[in-house]
Amino acid sequence: MQNPTAAMLVIGDEILSGRTRDANMHYLAGQLTEAGIDLKEVRVVSDDRDAIIAAVNALCDRYDNVFTSGGIGPTHDDITADCIAAAFDVSIDVRDDARAILEAHYARIGTEINEARLRMARIPAGADLIDNPVSSAPGFTLGNVHVMAGVPSVFKAMVASVLPTLTGGAPLLSQSVRIMRGEGDIAGPLGQLAKANPALSIGSYPFQKDGAFGSQIVIRGHDAAAVNAAMDALKSEFGDAAL
Amino acid sequence: MQNPTAAMLVIGDEILSGRTRDANMHYLAGQLTEAGIDLKEVRVVSDDRDAIIAAVNALCDRYDNVFTSGGIGPTHDDITADCIAAAFDVSIDVRDDARAILEAHYARIGTEINEARLRMARIPAGADLIDNPVSSAPGFTLGNVHVMAGVPSVFKAMVASVLPTLTGGAPLLSQSVRIMRGEGDIAGPLGQLAKANPALSIGSYPFQKDGAFGSQIVIRGHDAAAVNAAMDALKSEFGDAAL
Repeated sequence: MQNPTAAMLVIGDEILSGRTRDANMHYLAGQLTEAGIDLKEVRVVSDDRDAIIAAVNALCDRYDNVFTSGGIGPTHDDITADCIAAAFDVSIDVRDDARAILEAHYARIGTEINEARLRMARIPAGADLIDNPVSSAPGFTLGNVHVMAGVPSVFKAMVASVLPTLTGGAPLLSQSVRIMRGEGDIAGPLGQLAKANPALSIGSYPFQKDGAFGSQIVIRGHDAAAVNAAMDALKSEFGDAAL
Repeated sequence: MQNPTAAMLVIGDEILSGRTRDANMHYLAGQLTEAGIDLKEVRVVSDDRDAIIAAVNALCDRYDNVFTSGGIGPTHDDITADCIAAAFDVSIDVRDDARAILEAHYARIGTEINEARLRMARIPAGADLIDNPVSSAPGFTLGNVHVMAGVPSVFKAMVASVLPTLTGGAPLLSQSVRIMRGEGDIAGPLGQLAKANPALSIGSYPFQKDGAFGSQIVIRGHDAAAVNAAMDALKSEFGDAAL
């Protein structure tokens, strides 16, 4: 059985200008792999309405789940919620349940809730809220799109809220071995192994250390016995060079 | 005058499985910003022929430059060069100039050049080679697509080879200031400032430190005087809260 698929959409000028190094993609990738959901594609777009809507439409048609990161704060450049509503052709307004969450939060920390902060209670019609235990302002799920914050601590908390609600598959298992040979020496046998095991994904990642060439070989698959057997075959092929 | 645009395509299962954290996107983003080339979109796809070809076709039609990272080594999962040839509908084979570079390199380090290593001399017809001073195996430019290695040290060296050959624009200038107020308090005045300066990109990045809320405000634009004026206006609006 095939695992469910996913895509991620990272939204933010600050990533594309090089000011900020995205951390959420790597985090989500690891979490989805553990959950048995195959991350197939990531896109990063700027805070641009047309670009966001086009990407959401393309990804939500093609994959079982879409996760977005960024653009749901109180400032003028936070336009993700409005874009998602537009992509799904539904209305968006301040919603009572989200407003109540924000009111309780700001009352607790003794800060007035103003028009800008209320923007964070704008939720597309028909969406389910995603709990945000870090800073209260909720994310939301509309259809197969999960809309989450860009701040890494909040993103992580929202992923933890969403993942248990999704249907996962078999976790992707992986084993790796270092082979102290150049990639060019490993490529032949590795290609044979890959051909003999079409259900496995076999990757080679070269490195150089203390003047010696080596490659980290990673074998990934959903069937533990198949991963083990391929790894054993690889190790016996390379003998002492496999560490 | 508008700056030239760019997109990046990161190719590799290891990024999407969470095994490896991509470093090339952040590096390229910073280099392009300095060169006055606006990075508009990034996509990450797996080592899948159809996915790579579809992404290349979509991006090279839409942007002035496309930079790819990954999938040009000697092993079976390195299929980028063949996919680029297919996307441009040109032939691909071992090319004499690329083969000569590899032969010289392996002769120098005393390693035999075998069939797998020769795969790295497969270059689509009509492409120009990109110099690789780190490990010799060249990248290439075909049309507006620059095909580079995924290993970060090699990627950086190839970016250094390619960038001087491209037409840049006005570098994107940026100034930032920390304002020790919650984003919700800053959002109103910031929205006004953004509306009054449509040519500038004004971003707000909230943080929390020692229990206090603050936001890093970044103003980006190609006109130094406009960036300065907007920053002055922002600082006078927030007085002592602007650090």
